[in-house]
Amino acid sequence: MNALRTAEVIAVGSELLGWTRLDTNSLFIADQLSRLGIELRAKAVVGDDRGRIQAMFTRALERADLVILTGGLGPTDDDLTREAIAGALGLELEEHEEITERIRRRFERRGAQMPEVNRRQAMVPRGAQWIPNANGSAPGLRLEVDGRLVVLLPGPPRELQPMLLDLCAPGGVIAEGAGAERLHRVSLFTTGLAESQVEALVQPIYSLWRTEEEPIETTILASPGQVELHLTLRGPDEAHARARLARALAALQAALGNAAYSTDGRRLPEVVLASLRARGHTIAAAESCTGGMLLERLTSIPGSSATVIGGVVAYSNDLKVDWLGVATAAIEAHGAVSEVVGAAMAEGIRARTGADVGVAITGIAGPDGGTAAKPVGTVVIAVSIAGQPLMVGTHLFAGDRDMVRVQATQAALNRVRLALQA
Amino acid sequence: MNALRTAEVIAVGSELLGWTRLDTNSLFIADQLSRLGIELRAKAVVGDDRGRIQAMFTRALERADLVILTGGLGPTDDDLTREAIAGALGLELEEHEEITERIRRRFERRGAQMPEVNRRQAMVPRGAQWIPNANGSAPGLRLEVDGRLVVLLPGPPRELQPMLLDLCAPGGVIAEGAGAERLHRVSLFTTGLAESQVEALVQPIYSLWRTEEEPIETTILASPGQVELHLTLRGPDEAHARARLARALAALQAALGNAAYSTDGRRLPEVVLASLRARGHTIAAAESCTGGMLLERLTSIPGSSATVIGGVVAYSNDLKVDWLGVATAAIEAHGAVSEVVGAAMAEGIRARTGADVGVAITGIAGPDGGTAAKPVGTVVIAVSIAGQPLMVGTHLFAGDRDMVRVQATQAALNRVRLALQA
Repeated sequence: MNALRTAEVIAVGSELLGWTRLDTNSLFIADQLSRLGIELRAKAVVGDDRGRIQAMFTRALERADLVILTGGLGPTDDDLTREAIAGALGLELEEHEEITERIRRRFERRGAQMPEVNRRQAMVPRGAQWIPNANGSAPGLRLEVDGRLVVLLPGPPRELQPMLLDLCAPGGVIAEGAGAERLHRVSLFTTGLAESQVEALVQPIYSLWRTEEEPIETTILASPGQVELHLTLRGPDEAHARARLARALAALQAALGNAAYSTDGRRLPEVVLASLRARGHTIAAAESCTGGMLLERLTSIPGSSATVIGGVVAYSNDLKVDWLGVATAAIEAHGAVSEVVGAAMAEGIRARTGADVGVAITGIAGPDGGTAAKPVGTVVIAVSIAGQPLMVGTHLFAGDRDMVRVQATQAALNRVRLALQA
Repeated sequence: MNALRTAEVIAVGSELLGWTRLDTNSLFIADQLSRLGIELRAKAVVGDDRGRIQAMFTRALERADLVILTGGLGPTDDDLTREAIAGALGLELEEHEEITERIRRRFERRGAQMPEVNRRQAMVPRGAQWIPNANGSAPGLRLEVDGRLVVLLPGPPRELQPMLLDLCAPGGVIAEGAGAERLHRVSLFTTGLAESQVEALVQPIYSLWRTEEEPIETTILASPGQVELHLTLRGPDEAHARARLARALAALQAALGNAAYSTDGRRLPEVVLASLRARGHTIAAAESCTGGMLLERLTSIPGSSATVIGGVVAYSNDLKVDWLGVATAAIEAHGAVSEVVGAAMAEGIRARTGADVGVAITGIAGPDGGTAAKPVGTVVIAVSIAGQPLMVGTHLFAGDRDMVRVQATQAALNRVRLALQA
């Protein structure tokens, strides 16, 4: 077999050509292949049409060392990937008794009889090897064609993912074909800085890496309230690559200071929860414009119930007064979106729940409710921790309602993170 | 020009071949084209490589009446779509002074000078027409090749979308080419039933439509807590098609009864909010395992602050007692996840906030915390409305933590919806 350096992916399924569903398997495949240093050159989606699958496959096989097809391996008439590939390569399809037996037993374990139509899933192009599927009836298939590798995998992610992981693990046919060179990757997440600010701080550093003999590639990805740096380095020596990437990360962290919060892939809620846990602290939140999003993000993490007491969504002013002890006079004098009220909310939620940390968000998410003095996107964030000075600040976030809310929760989590370091 | 019946889409950009980003423009394009009755036959993603763009484009043009390329129209060296298409068609690129002027003025309006490199965006293959871009410097391009239509659009969605809408609106070149036949679409959303239950109820109905002269196609899409039916009908007579689809929807609604909650694309939080608003009711929520997700979903809708008072995320038992008035004895006797406690939470949040409707969720989202009697996925939901009997019920949801939480919020919204109808 050729060394596997380049790959193409073809997702089969008419449902993936509509306006509701994307092929997400290709992200998982790109991730796994990139770790092995295999470059994904193109990807395509084609409907359940034998001729079109065949044409797309034939072209891909002319260009890439590895072609992966996903989907179209079910038992029904519109599952045509097996037939298309056999047709394109001029191979006969043969039933493998061993596969039929496995499918039959699978049905029997559930107290059912195998429908005759499922025999189609046991059809294998002559010379191909089949790949066991622990989570479904359709086996995968793999075959070598003029030194190139063709892999067929079922479409459902929970079936495809473990099968691909096996093929890409040491000893697996894709890992062995990929050779010694690997793509080594690290990431660094920041919050509190705009993409252009991050770029200005790190560009002078990473631009030097590009011209080295084994260049480090840097990609910047921005989403609301977060800017991520992804570093990749191609090379055969893992220890050497890891050491270089660690030095590169350290240089970026030095430049970014406190804005850098994670180099191990953990997101902000996880980092904040771990930091609270390490101090034995509990947390409670009082939210207005974010309407529960901050608490939802914190409690999305398994095991958070030991650290997150809960909190109040005080959307109305009455609730801010009755439940958090905010003074009506403060709301009247300064407005519900003010540092005075935000501070009172953070102190109120901490005092009334007995939490070690109280965090509050009050703001104007839009699209309505803005004024000249407090435009849409104005958000006050306050953090109250026993024995520490109260932290409160006003932000102005850009974007639509959802973007303002996401940025507000990021900023609140970040203020808690920084307050815990103080 | 040929009638436009089939299309292919090619997204250009190496960043779309990694493990972090999907091409989402193709969903928007598929949506717009399908309304015009144009079938999207295939889509592809290719990196910033002139030869590969060219090869991919050449094949697509052999197969489809309409080829849309997105991305690669920026001013830098790795923006290669213009060059690739001109190369594939053997056309010269010429600078259009009118475009250069527009870009220059765009920069001047922001008090900046146009960088020389932006002249590349004024380069047009001979014979092509350019498409103004209101939200960016890159114009789109369109040209006819042997009766087929080629359209180049910039990659950023906020630039691409209005440009494509123009092309697909009456008088636009895609709409005019598509001819009189349109794809008419309606949808129906259900909740509270599993996909197999929905299928069993509606399959006998929609299977008859398939064999009619102008068949109605039915697609079923399932996500946690929601099953959607999408109906499409191809035909030249809009009024006739709309009337048939309305009859079809009515037949499905009759079969699905109360499980059908929307035929206008509105999701459950919007439908529930509208129903509350129509009755002049306010709502408050007490959440345990969903940790704020229910309130977050309700408040994600603009204008919700008039109806949603707020609520409590009572993750700890202390908060259930102190803030909601749940009796400690009830928690000790029945457990925090019990109908007794759920009912007390719903009544407590309503009484203490003065809301017209109180809704409560308490359950075990997992992955830990399950027992033999109350496995992971057990969720109690209660709804309290003044002057109505309290509604409370226990659900068992499958899936991971996030899936359990999403299903729990769907079920809670649905119980509110049904209680308001009572």
